[in-house]
Amino acid sequence: MSRWQPDAAGRLAKAALTLFDEQGYAATTVDEIAAAAGLTKRTFFRHFANKREVLFSGSSELQQLFLDAVVGAPQTAGPIDAVSAAFAPVGQLFARRLPFARVRARVIAANPELQERELIKLDTMVVALAGALRERGVADAEAVLAAETGVRVFHVAFGRWIAQSDPDALERLMLEALAQLRQLVA
Amino acid sequence: MSRWQPDAAGRLAKAALTLFDEQGYAATTVDEIAAAAGLTKRTFFRHFANKREVLFSGSSELQQLFLDAVVGAPQTAGPIDAVSAAFAPVGQLFARRLPFARVRARVIAANPELQERELIKLDTMVVALAGALRERGVADAEAVLAAETGVRVFHVAFGRWIAQSDPDALERLMLEALAQLRQLVA
Repeated sequence: MSRWQPDAAGRLAKAALTLFDEQGYAATTVDEIAAAAGLTKRTFFRHFANKREVLFSGSSELQQLFLDAVVGAPQTAGPIDAVSAAFAPVGQLFARRLPFARVRARVIAANPELQERELIKLDTMVVALAGALRERGVADAEAVLAAETGVRVFHVAFGRWIAQSDPDALERLMLEALAQLRQLVA
Repeated sequence: MSRWQPDAAGRLAKAALTLFDEQGYAATTVDEIAAAAGLTKRTFFRHFANKREVLFSGSSELQQLFLDAVVGAPQTAGPIDAVSAAFAPVGQLFARRLPFARVRARVIAANPELQERELIKLDTMVVALAGALRERGVADAEAVLAAETGVRVFHVAFGRWIAQSDPDALERLMLEALAQLRQLVA
């Protein structure tokens, strides 16, 4: 490999995940992460505010995809159709990230503080998504329920996605989870 | 009032809620709560492990009602029917607690630490409920989805319940939220 490394953020994330997984999240320092990536601590802080952000820096991108889908859906689309318009781009976003997502889930499952952060992330998405639905003229009660449903379907499908081996399966798994929900409540 | 006060826990909870609401959760001490209830700190700790538990001591009761409903539902009941069998007893449990629940929600909304705890409580319920559904022979994927659905329907309906004035409305609001979800995903 050449000395010049364009994807510093990617290398730092990979090094961090490996260390979190091997020796525990709490026991891992930013110094170790930077050293394992062959970069400086200063470079680390150019990309991430702290070591936790290595695990959560993708959250805003995910949320934005859901918001873009809701904002961009045809005005005739119902709230669930507007939310599920995000399934294809969300599936594409994660397609390259299956090995990362799998290790990330393992690291989070091993640490209560990170589990809390993950729950807050999902809850923040619900609030943002409900807001975007209200902007479309969806009544408050229905907006909250549709946003909760979209985020839970994503969450359940994501759990199934990291437990299987096809990186491109996430969109299909979200559609299946939604269909299953439809059947469950029918 | 007589000096002998049978409902020490209730008085402590009421005093705590009032103080949390008036001067903030973080600023309130156990000493102040006990004094406001006309009881000792020692009595406080006989009923609650810490001040946070005043807000969350009802969680296990709520969870138990959901679990009892799932365990007690006829074997022919589908997963959502088994979960929604809890709506009537849950509605009854909360019927006496509307003023408490309303202040509690305000206190929690004002404090990020308490919001986290609330999210964890709901997540713990999902995990427990999914386990009870699996015990009934429900497949894992479906169990998780049904548990998520039941807890979110409860959560959404609870938010509507504290925003209205009929203490007995919770069961109806849960049934309505479930019906609304059914229509949303149809």
